[in-house]
Amino acid sequence: MQLSLCTWAEVEAYLARADAIIVPIGSTEQHGPNGLIGTDAICAEAVARGVGAETGALVGPVMSIGMAQHHLAFPGSITLRPSTLIAFVSDYVFSLARHGFRRFMFINGHGGNIAPLSAAFSELYATASLDPSGSVPRLRCTLRNWFDGPEIGRLSRQFYGDKDGSHATASEVALTQFLHPDAIKRVEMPAVTPTRRRFTDALDLRALHPDGRIGSEPSLATPEHGKALYEAAVRECSTAWRSFVQEA
Amino acid sequence: MQLSLCTWAEVEAYLARADAIIVPIGSTEQHGPNGLIGTDAICAEAVARGVGAETGALVGPVMSIGMAQHHLAFPGSITLRPSTLIAFVSDYVFSLARHGFRRFMFINGHGGNIAPLSAAFSELYATASLDPSGSVPRLRCTLRNWFDGPEIGRLSRQFYGDKDGSHATASEVALTQFLHPDAIKRVEMPAVTPTRRRFTDALDLRALHPDGRIGSEPSLATPEHGKALYEAAVRECSTAWRSFVQEA
Amino acid sequence: MQLSLCTWAEVEAYLARADAIIVPIGSTEQHGPNGLIGTDAICAEAVARGVGAETGALVGPVMSIGMAQHHLAFPGSITLRPSTLIAFVSDYVFSLARHGFRRFMFINGHGGNIAPLSAAFSELYATASLDPSGSVPRLRCTLRNWFDGPEIGRLSRQFYGDKDGSHATASEVALTQFLHPDAIKRVEMPAVTPTRRRFTDALDLRALHPDGRIGSEPSLATPEHGKALYEAAVRECSTAWRSFVQEA
Amino acid sequence: MQLSLCTWAEVEAYLARADAIIVPIGSTEQHGPNGLIGTDAICAEAVARGVGAETGALVGPVMSIGMAQHHLAFPGSITLRPSTLIAFVSDYVFSLARHGFRRFMFINGHGGNIAPLSAAFSELYATASLDPSGSVPRLRCTLRNWFDGPEIGRLSRQFYGDKDGSHATASEVALTQFLHPDAIKRVEMPAVTPTRRRFTDALDLRALHPDGRIGSEPSLATPEHGKALYEAAVRECSTAWRSFVQEA
Amino acid sequence: MQLSLCTWAEVEAYLARADAIIVPIGSTEQHGPNGLIGTDAICAEAVARGVGAETGALVGPVMSIGMAQHHLAFPGSITLRPSTLIAFVSDYVFSLARHGFRRFMFINGHGGNIAPLSAAFSELYATASLDPSGSVPRLRCTLRNWFDGPEIGRLSRQFYGDKDGSHATASEVALTQFLHPDAIKRVEMPAVTPTRRRFTDALDLRALHPDGRIGSEPSLATPEHGKALYEAAVRECSTAWRSFVQEA
Amino acid sequence: MQLSLCTWAEVEAYLARADAIIVPIGSTEQHGPNGLIGTDAICAEAVARGVGAETGALVGPVMSIGMAQHHLAFPGSITLRPSTLIAFVSDYVFSLARHGFRRFMFINGHGGNIAPLSAAFSELYATASLDPSGSVPRLRCTLRNWFDGPEIGRLSRQFYGDKDGSHATASEVALTQFLHPDAIKRVEMPAVTPTRRRFTDALDLRALHPDGRIGSEPSLATPEHGKALYEAAVRECSTAWRSFVQEA
Repeated sequence: MQLSLCTWAEVEAYLARADAIIVPIGSTEQHGPNGLIGTDAICAEAVARGVGAETGALVGPVMSIGMAQHHLAFPGSITLRPSTLIAFVSDYVFSLARHGFRRFMFINGHGGNIAPLSAAFSELYATASLDPSGSVPRLRCTLRNWFDGPEIGRLSRQFYGDKDGSHATASEVALTQFLHPDAIKRVEMPAVTPTRRRFTDALDLRALHPDGRIGSEPSLATPEHGKALYEAAVRECSTAWRSFVQEA
Repeated sequence: MQLSLCTWAEVEAYLARADAIIVPIGSTEQHGPNGLIGTDAICAEAVARGVGAETGALVGPVMSIGMAQHHLAFPGSITLRPSTLIAFVSDYVFSLARHGFRRFMFINGHGGNIAPLSAAFSELYATASLDPSGSVPRLRCTLRNWFDGPEIGRLSRQFYGDKDGSHATASEVALTQFLHPDAIKRVEMPAVTPTRRRFTDALDLRALHPDGRIGSEPSLATPEHGKALYEAAVRECSTAWRSFVQEA
Repeated sequence: MQLSLCTWAEVEAYLARADAIIVPIGSTEQHGPNGLIGTDAICAEAVARGVGAETGALVGPVMSIGMAQHHLAFPGSITLRPSTLIAFVSDYVFSLARHGFRRFMFINGHGGNIAPLSAAFSELYATASLDPSGSVPRLRCTLRNWFDGPEIGRLSRQFYGDKDGSHATASEVALTQFLHPDAIKRVEMPAVTPTRRRFTDALDLRALHPDGRIGSEPSLATPEHGKALYEAAVRECSTAWRSFVQEA
Repeated sequence: MQLSLCTWAEVEAYLARADAIIVPIGSTEQHGPNGLIGTDAICAEAVARGVGAETGALVGPVMSIGMAQHHLAFPGSITLRPSTLIAFVSDYVFSLARHGFRRFMFINGHGGNIAPLSAAFSELYATASLDPSGSVPRLRCTLRNWFDGPEIGRLSRQFYGDKDGSHATASEVALTQFLHPDAIKRVEMPAVTPTRRRFTDALDLRALHPDGRIGSEPSLATPEHGKALYEAAVRECSTAWRSFVQEA
Repeated sequence: MQLSLCTWAEVEAYLARADAIIVPIGSTEQHGPNGLIGTDAICAEAVARGVGAETGALVGPVMSIGMAQHHLAFPGSITLRPSTLIAFVSDYVFSLARHGFRRFMFINGHGGNIAPLSAAFSELYATASLDPSGSVPRLRCTLRNWFDGPEIGRLSRQFYGDKDGSHATASEVALTQFLHPDAIKRVEMPAVTPTRRRFTDALDLRALHPDGRIGSEPSLATPEHGKALYEAAVRECSTAWRSFVQEA
Repeated sequence: MQLSLCTWAEVEAYLARADAIIVPIGSTEQHGPNGLIGTDAICAEAVARGVGAETGALVGPVMSIGMAQHHLAFPGSITLRPSTLIAFVSDYVFSLARHGFRRFMFINGHGGNIAPLSAAFSELYATASLDPSGSVPRLRCTLRNWFDGPEIGRLSRQFYGDKDGSHATASEVALTQFLHPDAIKRVEMPAVTPTRRRFTDALDLRALHPDGRIGSEPSLATPEHGKALYEAAVRECSTAWRSFVQEA
């Protein structure tokens, strides 16, 4: 159930029986030689909608732009500064809180979002925590990476061994190939070199990782892998969602 | 050509021949009894992609959340405060400017975005205008409402006479019916009452317009109207795009 | 009745019978070869005070600095960034709201203020709209350009035909000549060239409009025109004010 | 020489021989039973213009709204939060710095502005101080209270002994009576009570000073006093200005 | 070598041979029945100074206040909102960058700082990443928790088995007992209850963890444990520091 | 009684009998040839703790970083921009206000903090002053420089005559020598030159004061002077504290 395809009366009816919503969050950033710039948003949105279909959860609009300052040396990458991301998430969440939403599960497709999104949750909570009157709505936010979870881990190792990497992973490229078979890119690429150290800013990342991959061999990706990964992610995130909404 | 479906190398190639990009911007807000909450984002994104297909323009990710404070008394509506919208647009544009993009056409689906988006352009320009060294990139931003233009105007009058209204319009509902035939809502609704005065905040808008429509009869919308409107919008916005990129 | 010339007890007495106030807003920016840098503030303040005299409205201090980033390539121009203007208007309005003011008519003298001022209104309203408790004061803000209205339009056409232009207009120069006869500047200027396209930042505006005029022939201005325009503006804005305060 | 009454070409000519400007800054706040709400802005602007007339200094538009949170329990008082005042002053100064202005003397009429204005100067300077490249313009800002200086002090003691007070002073009321003889208010008021301690917020100030005066007997003010005080202030501030612009 | 105890000339000499600095960061927040409110700052500062003594590293002033919104339902806890923490870290780092510092190791004593501090690093890096000219200094920031590392892990298990917990841990209490033997608190406390779920805001944390401990038995702490933990932390962080400064 | 060395239960007990707290605030900035970079924080913290020992006052963690933009041309100096300082102080104070603290005495060691700290107080108070409901906690903040007061003045004149200066004073250097006898620096320095005018930004201060002293001869400082000054400061600030907490 997508928020975008509901009328307000349908949302009102949903709120009569539920107070939780899924917010997909991705990024718009380079994903190596054959990965799509929209990979993280595409994956997060698809998995979130899958969870919505499976569990009846309402799914809000995807946050397509995330925190990707480190990819800005590659054309097409877009970042929110962390302070902007915090303001954006605050407005998104407090708007929905006004209607009665109280629980927010962010299904995330991008490692770089984890810290600023957690910081955004703290900023939100701080509004209540600093208010001695207790009149601020009490919210519960959680972040779930679609790519975490044991089943995804097993598939990754089965398909790619130690070559899935940490950015422009074979897994996420496979997932987008399943979702956008018309946008599969055939690109020759050399074996990836091992990661020497953690990157810092955009020029540094590009110096360390000249074609944008970090430890990955996304040429191994196939749409069939993507289908298996997608289904596993939906299963695992659906389980997480069911726990979240029942949490005391 | 969607930015999300490109690799970074494809964007690099695009930048070798062009420095302009389309950014669709919509909103997530109530659209009356039978309109979708995502109407403005859906329409802006579809028209932008249509222009991309027609002209070869690159199309960035849609800004699904706009400035919609006035709709917050209806469940499901989400707003960015104007100051957040300004920060968001700044990050979006300056990220792309770093890669060499210089011209930005925002294809807009929501009247409430016009003022804050124009303010965002001024905020961007001010960075250059306040810089005596002239080292800040010189950008050109423009806003184009898909629903403006003579052909759209003619179709609106032909289909709906004076009943298209100014929010939850029959035109935009028709456009979403064409794009999402599976999400057409059949809802009885009374004749709309005339608008007494301009609304202010969310409670005021709901008091003046109890079911969310402003002067419109969206029950008149059909997917066939939507198709005609879509094609006209793509034609008119494509013409605007071609002028914009050739502007001296 | 000027706020600046009242005691607090007189304001208290005013609030016992009224909850509305006029705020003049102008700009400090180049106005072509013979226009005063303070033109927009001078005109807005004078018209606002005229309305105050005519209707008994209380008139707050003029906001002399507006959003004028596009004029910064001409010496003497000063801008607020839109985000600063929003903060300034918020403080101005919320201060007065604390005393019981609820309706604010901004009499505006500068086109460049329209978008950021509208954005400021939305920022203000959003405070109430995001607050589910409904405890934030409910405000009503409106923007009225002194230069809009049918009578002004007729006079402009009668005096200047199609040569009034859109910046450093003959009308506004005339109005300042009426108000400041001691500051009438005699400057030779060539016929203005037609506007090719919309300007962006400050260097761009100056490149397009080398002496600062946009489509205007302010050498046609006379103090007598100014007097007629002033009186028309006061009449039209007084009518607007009376409607505004009676609005249900 | 008022900036508002110049053309941009006149400012350009001024900048060929000078790089300094005066900025009057006041406040809009209660000034006791017979003081005008605009007192601080009126005095600062008048003295600044007097200095301009005497020395040829250019005088920018008055900042009519200052930091007056402590007066908000009296109707008509308006405050900028210090953070807004800092943003406002930054925009004002950096706009003029772009044209070549380098020295800024703020002629101030309100004690409550001293700390936030000094903080604003530090915020401005910090831009240069944090910039290792040294490319940020090097500015010099100074604050001058019109009511400081030995001659003013002598007149105050001569006219009012120890009854001039620290807010709604007899001196400033006298100055406004000289400037606005049409707005002299005749109000009975009891002898003022001694100040017990420093106020904090608005309710606290009103509890300590129920009619808004702090230690003053403004009923002693006369327009003749005002004239003497005005002339002394212009003399003393003119001397300060001449030193400032010649400072190595 | 503590920055606070150097003269500026000594820092200048240090910069001639090094460009790295340690910044201790802690928090001021409840630490259960017998833990000190300053625990996190005390531990981080002591370990950082130990590393400074061991390696010759310069150590900046401790950030005593961290992100602790979740502890605000217990008296004495102080938080920075994440957005404030980002601004604070930016000023701290950019000040030192102006002098030539390029590498910053934050030795951290508080889990709640990890996300906002990482977000702060991204905010810093984004300044460079968004700057196409490459003129912004290129910085390298890293975060090191003193309580991470294999040796600390072994000691924790040896001393406390599975009772070290995740907040108000026996380890950190022991460390403060070693550092402040005069401030050892003897408090009876019941066995801690297992953690049911992740806390959100301050009231929620207190409801889940009524005496402030999370999964810990800090009554087991002794100063002798603290000494061993301190020495291990200094060793492990010194190793991390040596790698960091040599990193290519 | 140091907040850092208390448990939360001890703070709770303190709040049952008191609602006031001391916050030491210093700076991290060059202090001339033989002064410590941490001088201002060291002095403020030591005096504050002395007052705590003398009066039973609770003392919060020192703010080690202050507003020191003007010292940034000397290595090791760190500044908060005034806007950051305002945000930091707000979070610090509002956190404690949530627990019931209502009175805050800032014991200050740095002249450059006076304006931004006063501005921070106004920003805090403005929250209450702009709130017509009166539900914001009513706070009382005061700033006390340890180096003000008649006894300190007498000692300064007795020890140094007119050579104490205004920055890197002999007094403060003496105080740190008493507190850190292990960090006494022996540095030859020429007689200081008289101050020509007030500094502005960092490069300006260094040009005017090449070794960082302003009018001072800190080579005259001795630890014995420091002891006498420390004791006088504790006495005078203790008296001020006792008045503050009893103030009606």
